[in-house]
Amino acid sequence: MSSFGHYLRVTTAGESHGKSVSCIIDNCPPGLALTEDDIQPQLERRRPGQSSITTPRNEKDRDQRPKDYGDQTIDLFPRPSHADWTYLEKYGTKASSGGGRSSARETIARVAAGALAEKWLREIYGVEIVAFVTSVGNIKLFGDADAMSADPAFLSLAQSITREQVDEFVPVRCPHVETAKRMEERIAELRDAHDSTGGTVTCVIRGAPSGLGEPAFDKLQATLAHAMLSIPAVKGFEAGSGFLGAEMRGSKHNDPFVPAPALDGASEMLGIPRSRLQTKTNDSGGIQCGISNGMPIFFRLAFKPPATISLDQTTARYDGEGEGVLAAKGRHDPCVVPRAVPIVEGMAALVIADAVMAQHAHQMGIQIAKSAASKK
Amino acid sequence: MSSFGHYLRVTTAGESHGKSVSCIIDNCPPGLALTEDDIQPQLERRRPGQSSITTPRNEKDRDQRPKDYGDQTIDLFPRPSHADWTYLEKYGTKASSGGGRSSARETIARVAAGALAEKWLREIYGVEIVAFVTSVGNIKLFGDADAMSADPAFLSLAQSITREQVDEFVPVRCPHVETAKRMEERIAELRDAHDSTGGTVTCVIRGAPSGLGEPAFDKLQATLAHAMLSIPAVKGFEAGSGFLGAEMRGSKHNDPFVPAPALDGASEMLGIPRSRLQTKTNDSGGIQCGISNGMPIFFRLAFKPPATISLDQTTARYDGEGEGVLAAKGRHDPCVVPRAVPIVEGMAALVIADAVMAQHAHQMGIQIAKSAASKK
Amino acid sequence: MSSFGHYLRVTTAGESHGKSVSCIIDNCPPGLALTEDDIQPQLERRRPGQSSITTPRNEKDRDQRPKDYGDQTIDLFPRPSHADWTYLEKYGTKASSGGGRSSARETIARVAAGALAEKWLREIYGVEIVAFVTSVGNIKLFGDADAMSADPAFLSLAQSITREQVDEFVPVRCPHVETAKRMEERIAELRDAHDSTGGTVTCVIRGAPSGLGEPAFDKLQATLAHAMLSIPAVKGFEAGSGFLGAEMRGSKHNDPFVPAPALDGASEMLGIPRSRLQTKTNDSGGIQCGISNGMPIFFRLAFKPPATISLDQTTARYDGEGEGVLAAKGRHDPCVVPRAVPIVEGMAALVIADAVMAQHAHQMGIQIAKSAASKK
Amino acid sequence: MSSFGHYLRVTTAGESHGKSVSCIIDNCPPGLALTEDDIQPQLERRRPGQSSITTPRNEKDRDQRPKDYGDQTIDLFPRPSHADWTYLEKYGTKASSGGGRSSARETIARVAAGALAEKWLREIYGVEIVAFVTSVGNIKLFGDADAMSADPAFLSLAQSITREQVDEFVPVRCPHVETAKRMEERIAELRDAHDSTGGTVTCVIRGAPSGLGEPAFDKLQATLAHAMLSIPAVKGFEAGSGFLGAEMRGSKHNDPFVPAPALDGASEMLGIPRSRLQTKTNDSGGIQCGISNGMPIFFRLAFKPPATISLDQTTARYDGEGEGVLAAKGRHDPCVVPRAVPIVEGMAALVIADAVMAQHAHQMGIQIAKSAASKK
Repeated sequence: MSSFGHYLRVTTAGESHGKSVSCIIDNCPPGLALTEDDIQPQLERRRPGQSSITTPRNEKDRDQRPKDYGDQTIDLFPRPSHADWTYLEKYGTKASSGGGRSSARETIARVAAGALAEKWLREIYGVEIVAFVTSVGNIKLFGDADAMSADPAFLSLAQSITREQVDEFVPVRCPHVETAKRMEERIAELRDAHDSTGGTVTCVIRGAPSGLGEPAFDKLQATLAHAMLSIPAVKGFEAGSGFLGAEMRGSKHNDPFVPAPALDGASEMLGIPRSRLQTKTNDSGGIQCGISNGMPIFFRLAFKPPATISLDQTTARYDGEGEGVLAAKGRHDPCVVPRAVPIVEGMAALVIADAVMAQHAHQMGIQIAKSAASKK
Repeated sequence: MSSFGHYLRVTTAGESHGKSVSCIIDNCPPGLALTEDDIQPQLERRRPGQSSITTPRNEKDRDQRPKDYGDQTIDLFPRPSHADWTYLEKYGTKASSGGGRSSARETIARVAAGALAEKWLREIYGVEIVAFVTSVGNIKLFGDADAMSADPAFLSLAQSITREQVDEFVPVRCPHVETAKRMEERIAELRDAHDSTGGTVTCVIRGAPSGLGEPAFDKLQATLAHAMLSIPAVKGFEAGSGFLGAEMRGSKHNDPFVPAPALDGASEMLGIPRSRLQTKTNDSGGIQCGISNGMPIFFRLAFKPPATISLDQTTARYDGEGEGVLAAKGRHDPCVVPRAVPIVEGMAALVIADAVMAQHAHQMGIQIAKSAASKK
Repeated sequence: MSSFGHYLRVTTAGESHGKSVSCIIDNCPPGLALTEDDIQPQLERRRPGQSSITTPRNEKDRDQRPKDYGDQTIDLFPRPSHADWTYLEKYGTKASSGGGRSSARETIARVAAGALAEKWLREIYGVEIVAFVTSVGNIKLFGDADAMSADPAFLSLAQSITREQVDEFVPVRCPHVETAKRMEERIAELRDAHDSTGGTVTCVIRGAPSGLGEPAFDKLQATLAHAMLSIPAVKGFEAGSGFLGAEMRGSKHNDPFVPAPALDGASEMLGIPRSRLQTKTNDSGGIQCGISNGMPIFFRLAFKPPATISLDQTTARYDGEGEGVLAAKGRHDPCVVPRAVPIVEGMAALVIADAVMAQHAHQMGIQIAKSAASKK
Repeated sequence: MSSFGHYLRVTTAGESHGKSVSCIIDNCPPGLALTEDDIQPQLERRRPGQSSITTPRNEKDRDQRPKDYGDQTIDLFPRPSHADWTYLEKYGTKASSGGGRSSARETIARVAAGALAEKWLREIYGVEIVAFVTSVGNIKLFGDADAMSADPAFLSLAQSITREQVDEFVPVRCPHVETAKRMEERIAELRDAHDSTGGTVTCVIRGAPSGLGEPAFDKLQATLAHAMLSIPAVKGFEAGSGFLGAEMRGSKHNDPFVPAPALDGASEMLGIPRSRLQTKTNDSGGIQCGISNGMPIFFRLAFKPPATISLDQTTARYDGEGEGVLAAKGRHDPCVVPRAVPIVEGMAALVIADAVMAQHAHQMGIQIAKSAASKK
């Protein structure tokens, strides 16, 4: 379906090279003083052409040029690893040349919806969501030796990083001067080689209340993974200790509880109480048994290299009658991870907002239980 | 919610130590000649106590012993990285001692439902779904140098591995003699150390039709990730080239098309036509732009080490009044990945069956389009 | 699908003559002190065989006798107006003889789920839901001249009627001595004539908060109608002024507002504030533009006569090869409306509880809006 | 939620007096050659100002004049039976003056989506959906003595009536010369009296395949009722024999089967086979036990009189501080049923299309069952 979310539901429309991309946000919490200024900044961060190392197509979120892709071979050959063939298999009709509904262009709508969700989360709960680039090709911000959750450099960064700080490292959005510089050089190199590269994005969610997520099918990590793997080019997701956590022992991985510092009580009034405990370590990445525990939530995403490259490619014809050469054409973004940052943040906001609304729906029963308990 | 799937919807009930676990399967394709024998084998593969290296609790899918967990400290301390605390935060009430709805016991229902979905997929489309253990702690079946999709050893295994072959390697279900032996030793070692370990499971889906999955939010990798991250203890998911794919160049990662061998036509009659093309390489892992392309689909999962260990743990009290020692008690499974294999297969089957039914719903329009096209 | 509800979701399983009927209640508010005694009374009211005028099958909610229906002609002829034929058309397989999933037996699960929802609504909001029989055949409790909403006799009854009062009129559950007596005689007459009759049930919901229901597709009257038309044999639904309201003028039909009496403030604490205004008349039936206004909600349902009769019927063969006579067999309920009363109440409770949970999910935004407004 | 449908899902946006009304249609069958001409005719039929007896606001589906409603008393008093008060209760914020999301203006989106669904149903299955006005106030096309299903005049009309014929009776869309004339006079009379009137609309669906609808919660009559009661001002729904059916005996109400005339086989190829049997009578209204049987489906709707009238009304103030007079203002539609005709048709098309897609999803299993049966 073209919808995401159960309580706060976003439905998107629009394709690559269509006249517009739009979304309908269902069950939006009433009373939000929403303006374009709440949404435009994240759209700007997603926009192509933010620097000369990435695509020079300057969409400005309204532009669209179907002609760009038009040539003779593109009508004969489905582009490798692009939507051309699978779209035809699914719908019996060719996608518009840019990937149809699976186009990265559709994510404009997600970023807009996410900005709304985020405003609500920030104003009511003080939730902060910050994503940043952690690798481009094999140039990495953190080493492979430790899980994120066991890497002091990551943990320190996660605690305080802000979007403003991340944006000081445009065009790559990797918050480390030297690494960012190397990444920039690598991207420029690939641009000149008419090739592309993958990378990783890491996202931190601070201030989310405890109790979010469901214990069975809709574990918080499951809905986050669903959201993230629905972003074009994402091939992997790991939360908390992630894949390296699979190499750890339980005695090391378990996060012992410690009493949480006293709260100022303000957030108690907002419908979902804050946790009395926190954990000493955070290999769980803020989620235990599918439910948030109030600690920072973090996860990392693998983006494959963009399929669109400016090199000739040998491939089969649509009609299955032999192979040929799909001619290189146009200029494209050699690395999408810097622009994926606001998309990741937006999808994360939609997941968390949905879970908060689910918890509101439950809340009354909890208050009854507590009230009944207090009378005993 | 306690449901999974949109077209073929499974709803589960039951908890750790409850009287029973059950599920309702909605929209089940009519006409399946279903018997207990279609379901019981996978339940047996999931059952605890299949060997002495794993938990000696012999549930037989009906047993339940709430007393096992009872002691005095468990009433005072939430167990680290277990559901105790987050459940209380979510519901205002303590989970039954074994994890409530987030208990691995709930997966009995998933395995049963998955077996039904699988039967349908196998009988109609010849779909084969096989999962196996690829690591236990840092003992790995494949090296870290290459992505699965670029590792000849993996690709060869993926092409032909069967469940029967996997089960020759019980109790670890890693299809390689020497590696399996090392894994078994490691698990026994951890069992004796009262500790636990994580591991990875890899799953291959062969024979799935092309056209499955949606281009936007419900990309096939997104619903697979949702399904997989909803399995207790899963912290990571990677499809196709996965995290190592993020280090590749586009020119290497793109999968060129080649004409597919001729089909016998039988499958054409079953409602979803088979692809005329296939790909030479498969870094996409059988999914391009969210839609299956007819090639084998594969993905890998990271399982964290089980939280339940038989060691004393220092942690905070429920009431936030200081810390203390949660006493070790009972015997538990030091490594769950061998038993997770049928759960992974079951959830994969539910995802694929749901996507096939979605495609059936669409199918008529495609046939019109084709029919209209053929008249021109 | 076999589910009802979006926030509080009930999924049922089981058929006529199956071993059991069951349901899974998803998103149940935690903290409810639920026992069998909360559910059993409504099941008793639904049970067949409560008096000699209705079916002597004494199911006791566990009984099932597939043999009852077995004879030779039933294998050759689909019973008129029963599920036999449509089930076969839908599923390609015959329903169990009693109607498969569309059997009234499935409503056992709904009554159980409804009783739970009702307990929550009653304990938290003081919601009272009471249904009663308003006609059997052409014997009617109220005349046809006025809409319910304009009939003083109805309005008076609606204000105070309780289930206890309704049950004084078992076996017909029509709360008027003389009318009930005539209905009882009519039913006995039809039982002896081996025939059946339809009737109407009217339901009143008192104490539901204002603000329930959605303005567009999920108007409260729309979800109520969905719930009610999903009860076997229901063919019509009218809310508030209903069909006779279609004959009224706007100046008469509009319900002027008047200030509501002061509240004791207790209900304010329970998450959804109570309306400051009420209406002088109630042609709206407590719902305006899809949203409850805090006034009593009421609606009436038409039940067709049961299809199962004990008379020979001429009809076509399953194979379309001509017609023949389906032999009369067995004894069945000549009038189901008295037993439908708890089913109607249960479904109404599910709709209202779902809407209350939806409003909880929204609530936070409203409080922000109010808080912001109060600062101006 | 702002969505309707499970397989073919329509999500709408926009309010009274907003800049636009829009919808997103999800899961649209691919391959439809859709143009504006498929949609515009139904929008024209819904448009206000089609004649001088109805509202002179000539919206042309793009117009919007928020000033129309502005005056001083409208800020002090919630309009009786309008959305003003319930919207405020639900959202904590006032609706735009015309009713916010519950405005009849939102139905523009439904009519557009319905036109698409209808095109698909018509082209693939030859489904015809025709609605018409059956009463205005107490002026009725058919008498009250018989159920629709037992009224020869209705049955004859239902068999053949077309939209073209209905539109010969614009502005009232009641297909009977004399009755239409009386209705027109009554509406003009009420217009001059600054008052409004209710009415009924009846809808016939011909050519729908058998097997549509679900046996439990989503019976076809239940989803139709949901759809219809979600149309602004609808207070009642009756299918087949309806409320008068509640007065009938089973022996009269049951519809005996007869063999259906031979089909030309063409429709067999379109994925859902046609019924081999039909019924002699049609008190079931084409739906038995929630599932269509291939006979014409018909139902009737009660519309209450529009709440917006041009008369002064005494009512309470928003702040609950006493009552006062809400001043009459502007000109409005005294009777909406003629314009409701395309809305009813559109919503009916959405329900049927959704059910057809559900049946496609099921279809494969049925074919297996049949194929297996044919081998025995």
